[in-house]
This record gives sequence, structure tokens and C-alpha cells, in this order.
Amino acid sequence: MLITSVNNNKIKELVKLKDKKYRDKVSLFFVEGLDIIEEAYKKGYLIELYILEGSDILYEDIPYTYVSYEVMKKISDMDSVSRYYGVCKYLDENTLGNKIIILDNIQDPGNLGTIIRSAVAFNFDTVMISNDSVSIYNPKVIRATKGMLFNKNIITCDIDDFISKNKEYLIIGTDVNDGCDIKNIDIPDKIAIVIGNEGRGIRDSVRDKCDKFVYIKMNNDCESLNAGVSASILMYEVMNR
Amino acid sequence: MLITSVNNNKIKELVKLKDKKYRDKVSLFFVEGLDIIEEAYKKGYLIELYILEGSDILYEDIPYTYVSYEVMKKISDMDSVSRYYGVCKYLDENTLGNKIIILDNIQDPGNLGTIIRSAVAFNFDTVMISNDSVSIYNPKVIRATKGMLFNKNIITCDIDDFISKNKEYLIIGTDVNDGCDIKNIDIPDKIAIVIGNEGRGIRDSVRDKCDKFVYIKMNNDCESLNAGVSASILMYEVMNR
Repeated sequence: MLITSVNNNKIKELVKLKDKKYRDKVSLFFVEGLDIIEEAYKKGYLIELYILEGSDILYEDIPYTYVSYEVMKKISDMDSVSRYYGVCKYLDENTLGNKIIILDNIQDPGNLGTIIRSAVAFNFDTVMISNDSVSIYNPKVIRATKGMLFNKNIITCDIDDFISKNKEYLIIGTDVNDGCDIKNIDIPDKIAIVIGNEGRGIRDSVRDKCDKFVYIKMNNDCESLNAGVSASILMYEVMNR
Repeated sequence: MLITSVNNNKIKELVKLKDKKYRDKVSLFFVEGLDIIEEAYKKGYLIELYILEGSDILYEDIPYTYVSYEVMKKISDMDSVSRYYGVCKYLDENTLGNKIIILDNIQDPGNLGTIIRSAVAFNFDTVMISNDSVSIYNPKVIRATKGMLFNKNIITCDIDDFISKNKEYLIIGTDVNDGCDIKNIDIPDKIAIVIGNEGRGIRDSVRDKCDKFVYIKMNNDCESLNAGVSASILMYEVMNR
């Protein structure tokens, strides 16, 4: 089948996937680009594929529809028009692992994507995102993960509530001025590191519940690191113990 | 003086500062936001200030002009309209330091800004940017530096040429599959680390000139790290020797 009209009902529905509220309602999101579609397929999250006319069919076992250039342009979130647009079901949320990176109101899509990518690299098994952070299903976040979101247990929840109820984790906050060098702390089996908002840092109610604070040693001329860099270095240090 | 017309000749010139070619022609760029304007002022790069009507004068020794909301909206690069818009002269390029981070065709403004910020944090004195990388004066780069660009020696040049002519530096390339763990290499006084393009890595002509290759230890499930994260961890490791 080839769809050439942007007014086709199915296409109108796909366009709505750009909207967070609609995504949450139907529990579906979209991915673009061969690499990430391949990851989604391998992990069993890809349920439907839209293919730019003239391009090859990728998977025999995934329903597909050909679309015209105009239609692909309409549903795509990219500057350049993709050849493939995949619809995926929302990620399963698994039980908590032992190494958690907690993101408290992270707003920059690039930062969230980068942190998920680094969590895979540095063996953090769970990425926990506060309800008020940027959505994991935001197209810019997905691109920044380079497909790594399908490799991780990602949980969006009330992090205040999580910390209150899970006393077995050592909850580590970051503080440039206080606390101790990440290189000098003991790393227990169960650890959760909290990364705060890009501008305001960790919110007070979460900060109050942290067991310990750490900093990354740096020159005083620099007030703080980018949130994605901070999170990555802390996870790297924990892995290297 | 208050300018209320977007057709004012001075305002038309400011709008042109959004264009790289014009910036290079006049050797001027603009910054927005109090923090970064303060950094520009402290380091002597701020030459002129445009202030949203109703806001305070910041510095008695810097020429200023009040502008209307409409005018500020026209010259600003931000989604929200700034209260202050500063015109700066291009950065002085100083003599080379001992610790150089070389960026080979970095394209993402957030990555370049993040790397400059991390270079300040981790005592790399020189950031060298290939001619075909995103411009340091791109407004998104400047925002991502959090004002740190005024704290660094930043040089845009032909990096092939630099490496050929400066044999006293140990030139280190990054290679996920080859080379040795950054933790295990000797760090000489003069070192330059090359970070490649986000998609393609280091170009062949530069790769051929590297003295050594290093990697950051990570899980095989992750093909590579974000370029800003890689650069930051490598600089962090060098500082911590």
C-alpha cells in the first residue's frame, strides 16, 4: 500500500505522535533513522514501519506501509526527510537494578539522551526520570540516545517517593561546594546517583533525602559541568572501582 | 537613547550578527543573558550593550542603547526575549598552551560549548577547532559554554597543518576498538587530544598523524559516547594524573 495524502486518517494519527499527551494516551512513539530502527526491531519494540516510496522493505515480520515524500515530510521530525519511520510501543519498565542514575527535572533533550547512552557504557542498569523531566519519548531525546534507550531499564516516576521507600540504596547527591571527591567514597552494591536540573540543581525535597554528597574535582574557574558530563563522569567513576 | 524601530540602521547591522559570514567580516559577535555578559565584561570583550527599556544600566564604562521589546525580539536569538544583549569583539588567540583539546569537524553546537566548559574545569589551556567545525561564535555554542569561552585560549585553524608543524606535542587520537585505556598511558608535559566528528570520527589525514590512540573503558553494548562526554572524560583523566 502507498499513502500519498497527508490528509489520510492514519497519517493524521502519526502526526499526533509528535505531541507528548497523545503519545502517553496511546503508549506509542516514533523513531527515525536506520540504526535506531534496527535497535527497536532487535529488542522487540518496533510494531509498524513507514517506508519512503522507492526504499527497500527492512523486515518481513513487521507490518509496513509505503508513503510519498510529502507524507514522510509531514510525519518526520527531522530536517532531512527520513527513508524509514518506525512506530514503537512504550518501553517496559523492569524491576530496579543495583546501579541507578536518577534525573531530577532534567530539561535538555540532548542531556537526557546522552545520559542514557552513557548509562549503557558505564553499566548503570536503571535510568530513573522524574515526572517533570523532559520525556524519554521526545524525538530529540531518542536521537541523542543513538538507539541506546532500548538497552536500558528506564523508569519515569515520582523520585521523592522512590527515595523515601527504597532505603537499601545509598543515595548520592552532587554538590560542587560540599561533599567529598567521588574518587574517595565507598561504593556499595546498591547505589543511586541524583543529577539535578541544569539551572537549579537538585530540588530541596530530594536533596534532604540524600545520604551523601559528592563532587567531581575541577578548577574553580568553572562553576559547574554540563549535566550530561557530570552524570557520565560519576557513572564512569563508579564503574571503575 | 531609545531605539524603537526594527528598521533602524544600527539594528539592521545587529541582526546581521546572526550570520557567520557577517560576524567574520566585522570580527564581532553577540551574547545574551546576564551571566555571560558579566563574563564578557570582566574579561574585556564587551564593547557595547543593548538594554530592554525599563531595565537597569549595568556598566558605566560600556556604551549602551535602550531598545524596545520589538527591537530586542528582532536582534535576540533566544525564545524568550533577553533584557540584555551585548556586542563583543572576537577573542584574542594566544600562544599555544601545554594541554590542547583538538576538535576535528565537531558539528553540534552543544558539544562544542560543553567541551569548552569542561576544558576550563579540567585545566586544558587551549581549545583548537578545525576550520570546518561549528563556529565558536554561534549563539548556541556560546550559550552552552555558560560564559566559559572568555576563560580559554580558543584557536580556530587548520589542524592538519598544526599537527605537522608541532612535533613537541604527544598527539592522542581516540579509537574505541584499538589503542589503550586512557588510564594506562604516560602523560607528557605537552599533550594534544583529538576528538573527531560526531558521526564519522577523526578524518584519515589527521588520524595518520596521531602518535597514540586511547579509549575509554566501557560496556560493549555501547558503540560510542557522546563527543562532549568523551572529550570531558579524557581531559578529566589527564588532569587526575
